[in-house]
Amino acid sequence: MMAIDKLLTKNRERKFICVGLDSDIDKIPANLKSSSNPILDFNQAIISFTKSAVAAYKINFAFYEKDGEKGLRVLSETVESIPRDILIIADAKRGDIGNTSLMYAKSVFDHYNFDAVTLNPLMGRDSLEPFLDYKDKLNFILTLTSNKGAADFEKLKLDNGKFLYQQIIEKIVDWNSNNNCGLVFGATNTNELVENINSFDSLPVLLPGVGAQGASVEDVIAAFKSAGRSNFLINVSRGIIYSSEEEDFAEKAAEELLNYNKKIDSILKEA
Amino acid sequence: MMAIDKLLTKNRERKFICVGLDSDIDKIPANLKSSSNPILDFNQAIISFTKSAVAAYKINFAFYEKDGEKGLRVLSETVESIPRDILIIADAKRGDIGNTSLMYAKSVFDHYNFDAVTLNPLMGRDSLEPFLDYKDKLNFILTLTSNKGAADFEKLKLDNGKFLYQQIIEKIVDWNSNNNCGLVFGATNTNELVENINSFDSLPVLLPGVGAQGASVEDVIAAFKSAGRSNFLINVSRGIIYSSEEEDFAEKAAEELLNYNKKIDSILKEA
Repeated sequence: MMAIDKLLTKNRERKFICVGLDSDIDKIPANLKSSSNPILDFNQAIISFTKSAVAAYKINFAFYEKDGEKGLRVLSETVESIPRDILIIADAKRGDIGNTSLMYAKSVFDHYNFDAVTLNPLMGRDSLEPFLDYKDKLNFILTLTSNKGAADFEKLKLDNGKFLYQQIIEKIVDWNSNNNCGLVFGATNTNELVENINSFDSLPVLLPGVGAQGASVEDVIAAFKSAGRSNFLINVSRGIIYSSEEEDFAEKAAEELLNYNKKIDSILKEA
Repeated sequence: MMAIDKLLTKNRERKFICVGLDSDIDKIPANLKSSSNPILDFNQAIISFTKSAVAAYKINFAFYEKDGEKGLRVLSETVESIPRDILIIADAKRGDIGNTSLMYAKSVFDHYNFDAVTLNPLMGRDSLEPFLDYKDKLNFILTLTSNKGAADFEKLKLDNGKFLYQQIIEKIVDWNSNNNCGLVFGATNTNELVENINSFDSLPVLLPGVGAQGASVEDVIAAFKSAGRSNFLINVSRGIIYSSEEEDFAEKAAEELLNYNKKIDSILKEA
């Protein structure tokens, strides 16, 4: 199944929340810590309770690489625990010269079997091409990020009057000949989202920044609704997976996810 | 030992070549392929023959991540095979929001015990800060890369008249309060190197692009010599490690490295 079809199918079912598995041994419930594989147990419980209501899962590589090979084994087993009709995003922010990016693409798509990846476009088109050559996958490319540092470079104005992030969006739209590009747009930038949404063309959008980072799901939904678009994913990581520090963490995560879905539904139904 | 001191010590010994271990099962000599761990054997042979003449080793994560946990185990064992007076650079091009970058920093510096890392600055200061907080390490941050795609964004002109890569250099100089920042500057950009070298302040520079990518070591040395600077590393990966496809690959790699060192020495000695 093409990655984009997985996303569109869930979006048609009004599922827009991507649950980010930024699973951290210091934040998971104490009762799991005596397990032989606490992070995998945590992830599998979260997946089991949320899979019927999510649009996608995003696995943040840093949280697994931190533990070296052991962590990567947990990452791999987490991917295997997710039903294959659900989009699985490798949040890896890769990007390098061509022969190196090819190896990263092999890692993410062939070795770990992800449907999608996040990429950093700074080094330009040839640094992303090995990923874009995978026609069945989805490549979410950074445009304007959710953090403060977005002001350092992404929001600089170019001599053609555009902001750098706008130039990046324009290029990505141009690079989309395999219909497998998407954008990462930080939901904390509400004004910029509203102002630029029509430049996104038909590309799917991954929006981090809701939850712990402070952006509002209402603002995002309103922006996409008024633009008449529905191919997007709102990522929530800490705001869902750490809903409870007790044994009921997975139930609470599912409740929180359902709350998001209800909120979204009610906004979509408003006249 | 501080990472910067390792680099400066080798530079004082007139060692400027960083050997990039972009080790690829499809390119290593056939006689190694029957081994139970061909890439590790290859790396250890290269290290054993080159260690007395190198300035640093750079390990390209992509080439190891491609094989998942197994590859990361080889990466780890390769790091352990390098004498600790030699700078070891994690070529990982990481960069993400703060809590994620912290995990990447833990992976590279704490788990794998690298001295230095390459970073992507697109997301701005807070995306690099967790790395910059490691005072004993070195953080080589992308400015102008060696590939064609550098023209897509890095070479765009800003409305303040600077190119984006120049603005990045300026920011990095500003972020260097722990004296642990360095620049990655693609050696293929000879003119830009000459024109901007005085804006690098005292930051060490890692220069990829020599060898397979076509830049000339003479041009790089000449530029640094005329600027009166010596704290830099010229990376050569394929141009050294694949000097021979036969059993003598490690000897040939060492010969090639010595050729580079001789060439550099003769340029430095010219009046």
